[in-house]
Amino acid sequence: MTSHTEQSAVTVLGLGPMGRALAGAFLDAGVRTTVWNRTPGKEQDLVERGAVSARSPEEAVGASSATVVCVVNYDAVDAIVRRDVVTDALHGRTLVNLTADTPDRARDTAGWAAGHGIAYLDGAIMTPTTTIGTPAGVFLHSGPERLYREHRPMLDALGGTHTHLGEDVGRAAAYDIALLDIFWTAMAGYAHALAVARAEGVTARELAPFAQGIGTILPPLFDQAAEDVDNGRFSDDINPITSAVSSMAHIVHLSEAHGIDAGVMRAAEGLARRAIGRGHGTDGFLRITDILNPL
Amino acid sequence: MTSHTEQSAVTVLGLGPMGRALAGAFLDAGVRTTVWNRTPGKEQDLVERGAVSARSPEEAVGASSATVVCVVNYDAVDAIVRRDVVTDALHGRTLVNLTADTPDRARDTAGWAAGHGIAYLDGAIMTPTTTIGTPAGVFLHSGPERLYREHRPMLDALGGTHTHLGEDVGRAAAYDIALLDIFWTAMAGYAHALAVARAEGVTARELAPFAQGIGTILPPLFDQAAEDVDNGRFSDDINPITSAVSSMAHIVHLSEAHGIDAGVMRAAEGLARRAIGRGHGTDGFLRITDILNPL
Ligand SMILES: NC(=O)c1ccc[n+]([C@@H]2O[C@H](COP(=O)([O-])OP(=O)(O)OC[C@H]3O[C@@H](n4cnc5c(N)ncnc54)[C@H](OP(=O)(O)O)[C@@H]3O)[C@@H](O)[C@H]2O)c1
Ligand SMILES: NC(=O)c1ccc[n+]([C@@H]2O[C@H](COP(=O)([O-])OP(=O)(O)OC[C@H]3O[C@@H](n4cnc5c(N)ncnc54)[C@H](OP(=O)(O)O)[C@@H]3O)[C@@H](O)[C@H]2O)c1
Repeated sequence: MTSHTEQSAVTVLGLGPMGRALAGAFLDAGVRTTVWNRTPGKEQDLVERGAVSARSPEEAVGASSATVVCVVNYDAVDAIVRRDVVTDALHGRTLVNLTADTPDRARDTAGWAAGHGIAYLDGAIMTPTTTIGTPAGVFLHSGPERLYREHRPMLDALGGTHTHLGEDVGRAAAYDIALLDIFWTAMAGYAHALAVARAEGVTARELAPFAQGIGTILPPLFDQAAEDVDNGRFSDDINPITSAVSSMAHIVHLSEAHGIDAGVMRAAEGLARRAIGRGHGTDGFLRITDILNPL
Repeated sequence: MTSHTEQSAVTVLGLGPMGRALAGAFLDAGVRTTVWNRTPGKEQDLVERGAVSARSPEEAVGASSATVVCVVNYDAVDAIVRRDVVTDALHGRTLVNLTADTPDRARDTAGWAAGHGIAYLDGAIMTPTTTIGTPAGVFLHSGPERLYREHRPMLDALGGTHTHLGEDVGRAAAYDIALLDIFWTAMAGYAHALAVARAEGVTARELAPFAQGIGTILPPLFDQAAEDVDNGRFSDDINPITSAVSSMAHIVHLSEAHGIDAGVMRAAEGLARRAIGRGHGTDGFLRITDILNPL
C-alpha cells in the first residue's frame, strides 16, 4: 500500500444505518473505502459496491490514513478503539468521530487521542441517512482547524454542508444536543397534540395540514427570539408569558380531562409560572431561557 | 338604524391586541364597526379610523346583526355576555366567539346561546395579530354550517384563510388546543436548547441558523407521521424509539450537568421509555401517541 493510496482512502467503523450511508457515499465518490462492523454481515452489499471488508478494527484502521467512526454512542466508540491493538494501529493517523454524544465525552476522547499520537476531529450529523451524499446533508465539526482543513476534501465526498464550529472539540456535540433538544421536544409536542386531537375525534390526517402551518411559523420566530435572548431583552407586549400560560393551562386541562398524560406541558407551564412569579409576566415566553440558565 | 345598515355592520367586543386587529381589519374593509372594551381608552385610534364607540356591551351588540367577541378566555366572554341586558340585546342576532378556550367551554357557550335565541359560531385564530387583514391569517370555525355560510362575507373582511371544521361547535377549540400544544412545546424546546447552548458557550445567534434547519425538517415529518398514527403503524427501522431515547438521555445528562432543569425532556423521555417497556422498542417515536391515548 503506497502513501498515495492511503491519502485517498478512508476507513468506516460501524455499519448501522448511518455508517452504511457514509460508506456508500465514499464509494459513490470513488474513495477507496475499508469497512468494519462489530456484527458481521452488514458489509456485504458495500463489498459488492467496491468496499474492502476488514477482519478486525485494527486491520481496518491500518488500511487508511483517516478513519471515520459512527456507532451508537461513545461507549461503543471506546469499546472499539480503546483496545491496545487498535489504539496502536491508529497512531499517526486521523480519527473522525461522527458518533453523537455529549461535549464532555468528545473532550475526553480528544484527550485520549492526544495521549496516543492520534489526530482527532469530532463531528455530528444533523440530518437523516437519506441526506448523506446529497446536498441536504448537514455536518458539524469541531477540533483543530488545520486538521479540519486537511480532511475537508474527504468530508466533501459525503456531500452536504460542512461547518467547522471551532477548536473546542466539544462544540459539535454541544450544537448537536441543543438541536436535538429542539427536535425531540417538538416531536413530543406533535405526538401529544395527535393524542389530544384523537380524543376529540380529530384524526392525525385532519390536523396535519394545520400542523404544517405551525411548523412554518417556527423558524422565523426562532430567529427573532435569538437576538432577544442574547441581549437579555424579553419584553413582549403582544405575546406576554401570561398569555402563553393561559394557553398552556387549556392544553393541560383538555388532555387530562381525556386521561392523557400532560407531563411535558406541565413541566413547560411550570417554567413559565416561575418566570411570572419572579415578576416577568409582561415578558415574552423566551424569558424561561433565563430562568433555566441565568445570563 | 336600517336593516341594511345592520347587515354590513359588525360589533367587536374586546380591544386587546387581537380585538384591535380584528376591528382595524373590518374598518379597512369598509365595514361599519362598533367597538367596546371593558377598560375604556383602547378604542380611541379606532374611532379616529371610523369606528363607533359604544358606551356599554348591550349598546354595542345592539348596533349590529353580528358581534365578534375576542377576549382573554371564556370566563371573560361570560362576564361580558351572560348578563341579562346583554343577553337580551343579543337575542335574534349572531355571536361569533373568536376567543381561545377549550372545546367543553365552546359547547357550553353554544348551549347557553341556543337557550337565549342567539345564533352562535365558535372560532379560533391561529396566527398573530400582524396577520389579520392579510392573506397570512388562519381562522378556524365550527358550528352550524348554514350560519357559517351566511357570515362568510363578514369573515372574509378579516383576510386570510377560513376553514369550517364541522357542526360540532367544539371542533375549532380542539384544533386550536392541539396546534397550540405543538407550538408551545416546540417553543419550550427552543428556550431549553438556548439555555443549554449558552452553558456551553454557544450564543443564541450562533445556534439560530441551525435551529432554522430543524424547523424546516419538521413539517414534512409531521405529514409522514400523521398517516402512521391514524393507521396505528409505527415500525421504523431507521429511527427506532430506542435511538430517540439515547439522544434524550444525552440532552438530560448535559443540561443537568450544567444545573439546568430538564423536566420537559425527562417527561418526554419517560413516555418513550414506557413505549419501549411495552415492547415497542423497534417502533418510531410517534408510538408515544398510542401510549398517551390508545387507538
Ligand atoms: N440514523 C440517522 O438518521 C442518524 C442521523 C444523525 C445522526 N445519527 C447518529 O449516527 C450514529 C450511528 O447511528 P445509526 O443510525 O447508524 O445507528 P445506531 O443504532 O445508533 O448505531 C448502530 C451501530 O453501533 C454499533 N454498536 C453499538 N454498540 C456497539 C458496541 N458496544 N461496540 C461496537 N459497535 C457497537 C452497531 O454495531 P452492531 O451492528 O454490531 O450492533 C452499529 O454499527 C449515532 O450516534 C446516531 O445518533 C444517526
Ligand atoms: N395576540 C395574538 O397574537 C393572538 C393570536 C391568536 C389568538 N389569540 C387569542 O385572541 C384572544 C384575545 O387575545 P389578545 O391578544 O387580544 O389579548 P388577551 O390579553 O388575551 O385579552 C385581552 C382582552 O381581554 C379582555 N378581558 C380580560 N378579562 C376580562 C373580563 N373579565 N371581562 C371583560 N374583558 C376582559 C381585556 O379587557 P381589558 O382591556 O379591560 O383588560 C382585553 O380586551 C385570546 O383568546 C387569545 O388567545 C391572540
